Amino acid sequence: MSGTNQRIDGRRLWTSLMDMAAIGATPKGGVRRLTLTAVDKAGRDRFRAECEAIGLTVRVDAIGNMFARREGRDPSRLPVLFGSHLDSQPSGGKFDGALGVLAGLEVMRTLHALDISTEAPLELVNWTDEEGSRFGHSLMGSGVWAGVFPQDKAYGLRDTEGVSVAEALDGIGYRGEHPAAPFPADSYFELHIEQGPILEREGKAIGIVTGAQAMVWWDARILGQDAHAGTTPPSARRDALVGAAEVIALVNRLMRERGEDGRGTVGELHVLPNSRNVIPGEVRFSVEFRHPEDAEIEALADGFPRLTAAALEGSGLQLELTELFRIARQPFDSGCVDLVRQAAARLHLPAREITSGAGHDAVYVARHVPTAMIFTPCKDGLSHNEAESIEPNEAEAGCQVLFEAVLTRANRPIG
Amino acid sequence: MSGTNQRIDGRRLWTSLMDMAAIGATPKGGVRRLTLTAVDKAGRDRFRAECEAIGLTVRVDAIGNMFARREGRDPSRLPVLFGSHLDSQPSGGKFDGALGVLAGLEVMRTLHALDISTEAPLELVNWTDEEGSRFGHSLMGSGVWAGVFPQDKAYGLRDTEGVSVAEALDGIGYRGEHPAAPFPADSYFELHIEQGPILEREGKAIGIVTGAQAMVWWDARILGQDAHAGTTPPSARRDALVGAAEVIALVNRLMRERGEDGRGTVGELHVLPNSRNVIPGEVRFSVEFRHPEDAEIEALADGFPRLTAAALEGSGLQLELTELFRIARQPFDSGCVDLVRQAAARLHLPAREITSGAGHDAVYVARHVPTAMIFTPCKDGLSHNEAESIEPNEAEAGCQVLFEAVLTRANRPIG
Repeated sequence: MSGTNQRIDGRRLWTSLMDMAAIGATPKGGVRRLTLTAVDKAGRDRFRAECEAIGLTVRVDAIGNMFARREGRDPSRLPVLFGSHLDSQPSGGKFDGALGVLAGLEVMRTLHALDISTEAPLELVNWTDEEGSRFGHSLMGSGVWAGVFPQDKAYGLRDTEGVSVAEALDGIGYRGEHPAAPFPADSYFELHIEQGPILEREGKAIGIVTGAQAMVWWDARILGQDAHAGTTPPSARRDALVGAAEVIALVNRLMRERGEDGRGTVGELHVLPNSRNVIPGEVRFSVEFRHPEDAEIEALADGFPRLTAAALEGSGLQLELTELFRIARQPFDSGCVDLVRQAAARLHLPAREITSGAGHDAVYVARHVPTAMIFTPCKDGLSHNEAESIEPNEAEAGCQVLFEAVLTRANRPIG
Repeated sequence: MSGTNQRIDGRRLWTSLMDMAAIGATPKGGVRRLTLTAVDKAGRDRFRAECEAIGLTVRVDAIGNMFARREGRDPSRLPVLFGSHLDSQPSGGKFDGALGVLAGLEVMRTLHALDISTEAPLELVNWTDEEGSRFGHSLMGSGVWAGVFPQDKAYGLRDTEGVSVAEALDGIGYRGEHPAAPFPADSYFELHIEQGPILEREGKAIGIVTGAQAMVWWDARILGQDAHAGTTPPSARRDALVGAAEVIALVNRLMRERGEDGRGTVGELHVLPNSRNVIPGEVRFSVEFRHPEDAEIEALADGFPRLTAAALEGSGLQLELTELFRIARQPFDSGCVDLVRQAAARLHLPAREITSGAGHDAVYVARHVPTAMIFTPCKDGLSHNEAESIEPNEAEAGCQVLFEAVLTRANRPIG
């Protein structure tokens, strides 16, 4: 069994996390490293230099994804991939994405320092624009790579200043030569903070991620009639916000009926005209449900429009629901998941199986390559927030599990 | 009995309404004549010229209120005032405010054309900034005049460009010499569109306004915790929007429990961070209740904070309620109201008593001067809207009632 006596350097990992967090650091202790900006370029350049310093070969594909390769002993083997993303939310934290990339770098550094070679080659990945904050499309780099999102469509996306993805890639010199398309690979591992409270609450160091949730998203619009708040009697009101409040309560109820695995959220809501003494004539809002089970999401996708219409019946309000997408559960590869489970057990780390609640590059990669993810806890479950925080020993534990899973996979006997 | 055989000229009134609506006309048939702008100045200048053309003397006070005076036969009598406002909402209609001023002008023109003199002098008023859309404080001109709102505070208010009221007054040359303060006056009459659906629904031509509603306004803020919508299980959620939805439903229920006289509205609401996949951590919104009876508003003012706290109990959400103001019912003067009632009866116009649901300059003037208002219907109860619409015969009927009430009052025997 490989790797059990070899340890990554937790202090070196922490230093490299803090060094990366200095690039785009915000006054409140967070990070603003928006994709394909000069700040992102600085992060990418540092990452590339650190990879090259330990003999890795860095290639860049047409959407800016970076692959840092370490050759294996067996040239016929497919590479074992691992990584995450270096871009951040506008007011993001230090660890969302960066942990997976820099833990991957620490894996490479440990192999380099201990002069360990693996059977299969290894490739450490930095996916472009996981967050979607600048161009409005999350998981862009892995989505283009996986063929989920057409490259020309991605190139044409523009930020609020009118700069396109293609221009931004050229602007920082990261439109690479290599095609952004799935190439044969042995497996993919991604370490990420949970971005939720479950591991912390249960005192678990490691989340063995078995797959990603199913989900369904809508845009909703309720049309009533704006009218003077002081002069319009109850019988003449068609208050779109009163209708939206019923729908919000319904979303919450449908979530809670599904217990702790349920997720149901209205996160964005706009009132028109949004004036203190005018009855709202229109409300636009988002609705989403997520659940580990496809059957639950199918039931919600079919049932919610009917239940909403029933809730608004007789109100004189008009409802428009536009289903944006419905995604089935993405299960991860049982063999890869097992390697994570075994590594955590070997290391006596308290662990639990968990379904990824957030979207991750791994979810798209899993469509083409056997994939697993490793979660580590984050303080109060907070993420997408400058206060996002993890402990050095948590980062170290996650990185050690990544190291062992990757090594075991790269050295597995192939029959 | 004076005035019964004398008729205002409905066609002239309509022409003057349409001419004024051309100043600041919007493509959708509405009006944008924001207070103290160049467009407002154009409206004021036209109004002044038309007043002076029929021999009225126009004076302007320190907050820009305009008074167009026609002398009476008895120099010892106090003036009978009437008017409204020429400023509009950003996307306002042609009649809100303008009807009262231009119907007043039509009263003056009729007296001039028929060479009628009155015992008491008459003063036609154009109040500054009734709408509050530019500087954020409605009823500004009448509020300063009535001493409800300190003049220096009004002068210091700034629009979104940073221009102060004082600068804007000077900029259009309407900071007058006369003090903005109540002067002895006999009475005040204001004709206005109802801005609600009641008269239209009941087929009434005239609303005999007996007073203005009591009301209570709050700023509300619910604090939860923003968190990832995909990763945060139901038990860990503190969703501020779910809490706000409960409060919106409560406001609606408390309104409906009070029948057709109840008014309860959440008109403005802001969600933070307002992102599709983030559970809302904070919601800020307005709450208001209005009712013709003081006792109902007192009960709501005391009960609502308690009921809201109870509704949110156990949710982990924090509620802040800031009461902005509580205004008792403002009854109008029974003598003046009677003159409106009698005029409508004499003219065989279907009429009903009504409480003003909206705020009006008349409500502040009533603190110092015996006051009454006359309402006319507006299409679908719509106001503060470019689609605001009334019929020429409705304007004519309201103006004729104003004419008769004003003349009867100005000629009443004083013992």
